[in-house]
Amino acid sequence: MSSPKNHAVFLITCPDRKGIVASVSTFFFERGFNIVHCQQYTDPVESRFFMRILIDLDSAPCARAQLIEDFRPVAAAFTIEWSAHFSADAQRFAVLVTREAHCLYDILFRAHTGDLPNASVALVISNHPHLESVAAQFRIPYFCCSVDPHDKRMQEREVVRLLRQHHVQLAVLARYMQVLSPEMLREAPVPIINIHHAFLPAFQGAGPYRRAWERGVKMIGATAHYVTPELDEGPIIEQDVERVTHEDGIEALQRTGRDIESVVLARAIKAHLEHRIIVHANRAIVFSRGL
Amino acid sequence: MSSPKNHAVFLITCPDRKGIVASVSTFFFERGFNIVHCQQYTDPVESRFFMRILIDLDSAPCARAQLIEDFRPVAAAFTIEWSAHFSADAQRFAVLVTREAHCLYDILFRAHTGDLPNASVALVISNHPHLESVAAQFRIPYFCCSVDPHDKRMQEREVVRLLRQHHVQLAVLARYMQVLSPEMLREAPVPIINIHHAFLPAFQGAGPYRRAWERGVKMIGATAHYVTPELDEGPIIEQDVERVTHEDGIEALQRTGRDIESVVLARAIKAHLEHRIIVHANRAIVFSRGL
Amino acid sequence: MSSPKNHAVFLITCPDRKGIVASVSTFFFERGFNIVHCQQYTDPVESRFFMRILIDLDSAPCARAQLIEDFRPVAAAFTIEWSAHFSADAQRFAVLVTREAHCLYDILFRAHTGDLPNASVALVISNHPHLESVAAQFRIPYFCCSVDPHDKRMQEREVVRLLRQHHVQLAVLARYMQVLSPEMLREAPVPIINIHHAFLPAFQGAGPYRRAWERGVKMIGATAHYVTPELDEGPIIEQDVERVTHEDGIEALQRTGRDIESVVLARAIKAHLEHRIIVHANRAIVFSRGL
Amino acid sequence: MSSPKNHAVFLITCPDRKGIVASVSTFFFERGFNIVHCQQYTDPVESRFFMRILIDLDSAPCARAQLIEDFRPVAAAFTIEWSAHFSADAQRFAVLVTREAHCLYDILFRAHTGDLPNASVALVISNHPHLESVAAQFRIPYFCCSVDPHDKRMQEREVVRLLRQHHVQLAVLARYMQVLSPEMLREAPVPIINIHHAFLPAFQGAGPYRRAWERGVKMIGATAHYVTPELDEGPIIEQDVERVTHEDGIEALQRTGRDIESVVLARAIKAHLEHRIIVHANRAIVFSRGL
Repeated sequence: MSSPKNHAVFLITCPDRKGIVASVSTFFFERGFNIVHCQQYTDPVESRFFMRILIDLDSAPCARAQLIEDFRPVAAAFTIEWSAHFSADAQRFAVLVTREAHCLYDILFRAHTGDLPNASVALVISNHPHLESVAAQFRIPYFCCSVDPHDKRMQEREVVRLLRQHHVQLAVLARYMQVLSPEMLREAPVPIINIHHAFLPAFQGAGPYRRAWERGVKMIGATAHYVTPELDEGPIIEQDVERVTHEDGIEALQRTGRDIESVVLARAIKAHLEHRIIVHANRAIVFSRGL
Repeated sequence: MSSPKNHAVFLITCPDRKGIVASVSTFFFERGFNIVHCQQYTDPVESRFFMRILIDLDSAPCARAQLIEDFRPVAAAFTIEWSAHFSADAQRFAVLVTREAHCLYDILFRAHTGDLPNASVALVISNHPHLESVAAQFRIPYFCCSVDPHDKRMQEREVVRLLRQHHVQLAVLARYMQVLSPEMLREAPVPIINIHHAFLPAFQGAGPYRRAWERGVKMIGATAHYVTPELDEGPIIEQDVERVTHEDGIEALQRTGRDIESVVLARAIKAHLEHRIIVHANRAIVFSRGL
Repeated sequence: MSSPKNHAVFLITCPDRKGIVASVSTFFFERGFNIVHCQQYTDPVESRFFMRILIDLDSAPCARAQLIEDFRPVAAAFTIEWSAHFSADAQRFAVLVTREAHCLYDILFRAHTGDLPNASVALVISNHPHLESVAAQFRIPYFCCSVDPHDKRMQEREVVRLLRQHHVQLAVLARYMQVLSPEMLREAPVPIINIHHAFLPAFQGAGPYRRAWERGVKMIGATAHYVTPELDEGPIIEQDVERVTHEDGIEALQRTGRDIESVVLARAIKAHLEHRIIVHANRAIVFSRGL
Repeated sequence: MSSPKNHAVFLITCPDRKGIVASVSTFFFERGFNIVHCQQYTDPVESRFFMRILIDLDSAPCARAQLIEDFRPVAAAFTIEWSAHFSADAQRFAVLVTREAHCLYDILFRAHTGDLPNASVALVISNHPHLESVAAQFRIPYFCCSVDPHDKRMQEREVVRLLRQHHVQLAVLARYMQVLSPEMLREAPVPIINIHHAFLPAFQGAGPYRRAWERGVKMIGATAHYVTPELDEGPIIEQDVERVTHEDGIEALQRTGRDIESVVLARAIKAHLEHRIIVHANRAIVFSRGL
């Protein structure tokens, strides 16, 4: 990506009205900012406007606090809900896993080689000791929080504590085989992205590859979505599929599926870290990559 | 396809045992037939063997009746279920439609220009007069069988009568918006292929594009399957998908979907007409095209 | 698509500078227009700005001539090259063919059923009489302009004359097997879109499927592009591919390829008719569909 | 994959003749072997027959040497060129790299987690010290053989020596940025697979992503092929593509391309290690995975 080194992204949504684009773009223009990229979308059903605007901070001499302060009245005029994200703020995220290594390897490799812009993996959390050596390979702290079947909440509270302690901005469930309780979702200090090993809404829940084989589908897929209290029903960020045939047994589907899972999850993590997503009414507006 | 002009396809399935391939291939070899193409598959779960074998009939001087007669003891020895299909027998099929024209156009165009090997559309049946002019463009008989909401079976009996009268070997539901009753499926003299406008098992039933939009999926698809009494649960023959974004409204999904529906249905019809499908336990073994 | 019935599209490109978005959006806002959709792109190599803006003409009481007149000084201030396209102006285009029917059928079917927004096929031109019956099926005038091998320019002049006479805004080469001379391209009063039956720049020129088979590629494709004097080197609008295997002979590649050609060409025609393309330096900026 | 633990694969090719399938299958049947999987292909242009046959060695009490000895006369009768591969023989391969880490990581991760059946990475060879730490992460020996620009053959001889010394059966160029000389290819004791970062035959040679951007293609791809003396012209094993847009700059194409390169190379390595490839006349017959 060739975004300027020192940039900010504004994510904006409000009821659709005349003059939003003009007002917002004029706001940045008057302060001397170069708008490097600007994407919009109007939901025709809800008459709602969405915008992502990326500005070059070096193009104008305006302090961050001032910029945010100044933007408030513009936002208020259009009842804009907004967030501003600054490239100067490095991002940290947690990865939660159980026993499957492929997504974890893929994420650690990408973070390690700079493929995840401006972000690092702060810690790996698992309910098993199984993948500790993988984290060790990349020198990332690994926390094994095993689940007491009689009190699952205990483990969840420990996970939440770790997320807080490590000051992460995101948690990624990279084949984490525990269903998060509504309590945990309320307590979690950050958004959570999950990879589901099926093309949602097909094969929600457990055992999707086995069920895909039984149903005789001709393509299998994977879905990355934000976690909400309804299992596998959160806003979809990214999906992809691969063609299979009757020759592919369940194990072959799993092998093929792993490659799809890794790449779909990586794309979703990137979209989140690049501040390209606005969620509204359980749908994820995902602006295209590009700049 | 470069299959020899005068050929036969044997579709074979039986419990897996040593010696099937040797016995079957030796059977054809001893009679002097050239095996042009041979594909096999063993279902490891059910230990069941499947085979498609295409022979050049001009390579040996054996009458059709004799060939079939001779094959019986081989089949009996391995408890083979089998069918033999001869290229000399032209195939005829019926297309059932309601109001959407795209699949009908696609099928009629392909039949007209020789893209469907050795097959022709015998008639078009609809529960609406809407698409009569399309059939007329290609000079195919069009029968409008409207549905009496108080007695749906009456119309179904008329459809079955038409299928029999026109001596078709296959019926294709090309966006036919009526659910077939179990009685009709029992009475229907031919297999029936349906195109469902979603990536099954996602969005079974009505309104899949609307539900896909609401769910915020990032790809939409279509599924061709044999019709069984359980709605949208028959053996899947072919599926495909196309990427969509949040920008695509329901109407845009429908437009994109039409192209997928047409091509998925056409591939399924070809697989059936080329005798590349064996159904077992609600799964369709679809041998690859090629020869 | 849910664009408002009465709308205009402005296509804009100019050297990148601060204030373009603000100025252009303010221009429409001040006249009371609702901006329904707005897409932008800045080429970082050439520092060039591109924009597509779709406005609801019914949202403001401004005459077309006045709107265009008023926009001139804004354009001049940023040295904007621009064009404005009004949905009230129905579009007409010509289709040129030789012997292959699939793309022609696909286009005529789409135009006939309203899949090509606001556009109609005015005439079909061919260097062969072969496809006259296809045009007749859809009641479109068909002109057979055969080529005199000793004077190819004569036929080209006749084609240009027909394009002018029928007041078309676009010509589509739908498997038209003649290379257009540079003279013809200079004389042609409209842009020309061609479908090449390969994934350009692979297999430029003649016989791509044969060469694809010989090369043993594992996917084949098709490419729609604007025609320029350099054969198969014009700006690419759309491409797609399909997986093939060693089993697919040349004829099988051609059959598979036809489906890709039809859909790739249709997408390119739609992108052009929806005014989603700006060409710069032999690259086609193709804004996403959506609204 | 659910191939039996102790199996052998026979790869067979010969001029097409009646009786090959019968003879070969009878050969294994008479010795009591269970044929687990059997795939065939007849090249209609060259009238040449290809076959892959996978047998369960535990299904019959026949020693390996005896089996090979017995097969010779069958092969001779049909002038069969053949090779036999036994699952008991673990495979070892070398990976050659320069500076890009993604393919190396992907291969090491797959080998480490058992995704490459029955195979291990014996060593990593590079013309740079850059990726030594990656090999170290997975505890694989890393040899840095730098190139003397005045005598490139010296380095090549060292590489060949390493391949011999480590008894590998395959070498994989995982973004190895050196062109192998014809002498090296003659001396190399093993087949060599390369990943080219373009959809061959498009963009052969250097700088494919830059050239793809300049050409304005709408999809980019990667190609895995066996290395032959003609640069990027060896038999193609696997290809895949991903959709891109005008927004994707050269760096974005590279990022997207890396994911395609990794997965395409991995699929090609698997096809080779699973003995699913027969090369003939510069075309790679790649039998489907499955069993």
